[in-house]
Amino acid sequence: MTILETIENRASYRGTFQNTAVSRKDLIKIMEAGLAAPSGCNTQTTSLIAVDDAGLLHRLNEEIKIDTVATAPAMICVLTQSIVAYRDRCFNIQDYSAAIENMLLAVVAQGYQSCWYEGYITDVDVIGRKMADILGVPDDYELVCFLPVGIAEQPVTSPDKKPFAERAWFNGFKT
Amino acid sequence: MTILETIENRASYRGTFQNTAVSRKDLIKIMEAGLAAPSGCNTQTTSLIAVDDAGLLHRLNEEIKIDTVATAPAMICVLTQSIVAYRDRCFNIQDYSAAIENMLLAVVAQGYQSCWYEGYITDVDVIGRKMADILGVPDDYELVCFLPVGIAEQPVTSPDKKPFAERAWFNGFKT
Repeated sequence: MTILETIENRASYRGTFQNTAVSRKDLIKIMEAGLAAPSGCNTQTTSLIAVDDAGLLHRLNEEIKIDTVATAPAMICVLTQSIVAYRDRCFNIQDYSAAIENMLLAVVAQGYQSCWYEGYITDVDVIGRKMADILGVPDDYELVCFLPVGIAEQPVTSPDKKPFAERAWFNGFKT
Repeated sequence: MTILETIENRASYRGTFQNTAVSRKDLIKIMEAGLAAPSGCNTQTTSLIAVDDAGLLHRLNEEIKIDTVATAPAMICVLTQSIVAYRDRCFNIQDYSAAIENMLLAVVAQGYQSCWYEGYITDVDVIGRKMADILGVPDDYELVCFLPVGIAEQPVTSPDKKPFAERAWFNGFKT
């Protein structure tokens, strides 16, 4: 697949996963793709923890409580630090979002599927903080997202999107 | 190039550009890549304006005031809307950041270079708002980023980054 095909083929997969391990080599490639993303003034605010230990996955899934996610043989947890990049501004949301997108593409390029779970774990239930505690993550890092990784057991479907002409134009707004 | 090679080869290019037009076909592919990014609860908060009109580029560059950017034959402006996705939460920063990363990869995959200019135009000088006014963008959209697009005239260099082991681990923090 070309990169443009991979970008077009990526979709948020919320189904169950096959009981097939993801190799360390593949997990490293996925994380390398994430760390290759740009960051505001090169502050490198994003860190990653890949989890492939069955016992640890079980403990994390006791907090996450999503049946489909619990079938994934691996998971990548995304950590962020609020580091000032430019004057008084911090771009860590942009940084980890670019890193996540790179990882989602690397996941698909290697034959796996995933989904960006963020709002669910950074909400009032603070599931992300509970996951961080299980993983020994200190308080100056926030666990903002996890990506289940595995081979899809069900069809991958894409959501409906607005047509190109409603979201992109040349030389002016809605022109 | 495979997607992983493209991800590793992408870098923020701040040099001058060759005086060679970027085809509409290529600009459309780049924007399609951006719009293919996921968005929180599929809110599709990101919109794009590609600029390849010389007069309009000149007017935008009078506000931007970066000599190297002024040599780019095209530019993509990134617009965002604050649309609630989940409970009272809005993920538009995440949405446009994933879209920008996809576009930066599509740029490199097609032989061009670019750079993510955001902090500079969303700061106290409100250059982004001035650019939005030139492009006829209404107040409920924010112009948060522009990407110059063109063929590099100078070498593309990557910044130093921390080693993998300082930013990524398995089954625990710094393990």
